[in-house]
Amino acid sequence: MKTPLSDSALDQLFRAAHTAHGFGPEPVTNETLHALHDLLKWGPTSFNCQPARFVFIRSAGAKERLKPALSPGNVAQTMAAPVTVIVASDSRFFELLPAQFPAYDAKPLYENNATLARDTAFRNGSLQGAYLILAARALGLDCGPMSGFDAASVDAEFFPGGRFRSNFLVNIGTADPTKFFPRGPRLAFSEAAHIL
Amino acid sequence: MKTPLSDSALDQLFRAAHTAHGFGPEPVTNETLHALHDLLKWGPTSFNCQPARFVFIRSAGAKERLKPALSPGNVAQTMAAPVTVIVASDSRFFELLPAQFPAYDAKPLYENNATLARDTAFRNGSLQGAYLILAARALGLDCGPMSGFDAASVDAEFFPGGRFRSNFLVNIGTADPTKFFPRGPRLAFSEAAHIL
Repeated sequence: MKTPLSDSALDQLFRAAHTAHGFGPEPVTNETLHALHDLLKWGPTSFNCQPARFVFIRSAGAKERLKPALSPGNVAQTMAAPVTVIVASDSRFFELLPAQFPAYDAKPLYENNATLARDTAFRNGSLQGAYLILAARALGLDCGPMSGFDAASVDAEFFPGGRFRSNFLVNIGTADPTKFFPRGPRLAFSEAAHIL
Repeated sequence: MKTPLSDSALDQLFRAAHTAHGFGPEPVTNETLHALHDLLKWGPTSFNCQPARFVFIRSAGAKERLKPALSPGNVAQTMAAPVTVIVASDSRFFELLPAQFPAYDAKPLYENNATLARDTAFRNGSLQGAYLILAARALGLDCGPMSGFDAASVDAEFFPGGRFRSNFLVNIGTADPTKFFPRGPRLAFSEAAHIL
């Protein structure tokens, strides 16, 4: 067993991390977005299928395109975030499997089973969204994930054609700690887990 | 912006982490399972809904109950793993929202919308499964996540009653590096991301 990460690293990733609802002025550079992808891309997915797609929205023009789809409570924090990520999924991820998983021909498994393909894109695209959140924290950024938006509107605006579908949004930047909400309770081990 | 984690921490979490397909003899103690939950529980979920449930299977008897549901290629590694986690979701997670998110009455949103409830349990239960994978790596463990199993059989065996539904499985322990597969390629930034 490898050495556990330091307490300060565990705090930064999990214990002291807080969902951001407001952001300071520090920008998130393109170099940081590339560094973020260079970490999160290593997270495991079924048959290395990597269905997630990431649209990093920074410009005022692109923010305005996103704005009408946001739930009212998410508008101000999203307009103020240095970057908002649309975490989307490729509904035809299986077309890339021959290159991404050359050891076994997994493409027909999904190509011929729409339910399995949809569930696999949703499950693994969500895993990759969580990898993004934790990779961002590992790089020192704060995150504000949101599912309060009209997915059909986002898809019509950003993914015409129907192949890519939005899953959730994540604001990233440096949090303004005065905008944190009180931390919610968490289920105890005995409520959420069993050992058999 | 906080300081990024050290290169060795980023390697352990992402860059050098490898899916385990075989395990050494080191046990995973109950204390480690509690430490794992004490980290992953802090990961963010919509309205703090925390739909994931974790069944940590260690005993030979419980492994035998799981075995018939596994895809043939996953049997040997799962029987050899110190612990196999069933990552499941609570389909009625919204019943806990009044306690878990006291600031706003979000329960009716889900109680009256079966599609939204199902998608929210799937999305957030998957996020929490990814938090488990990365928390295990942060503690020095290796993971072998799998979706090759018959979910209906696992649910009938471990979750009779229908409220809880299996999502995916994760073997955890200390990897036998001789059983690693060659690392798959990853999509480049230009294939998986855009900056707008």
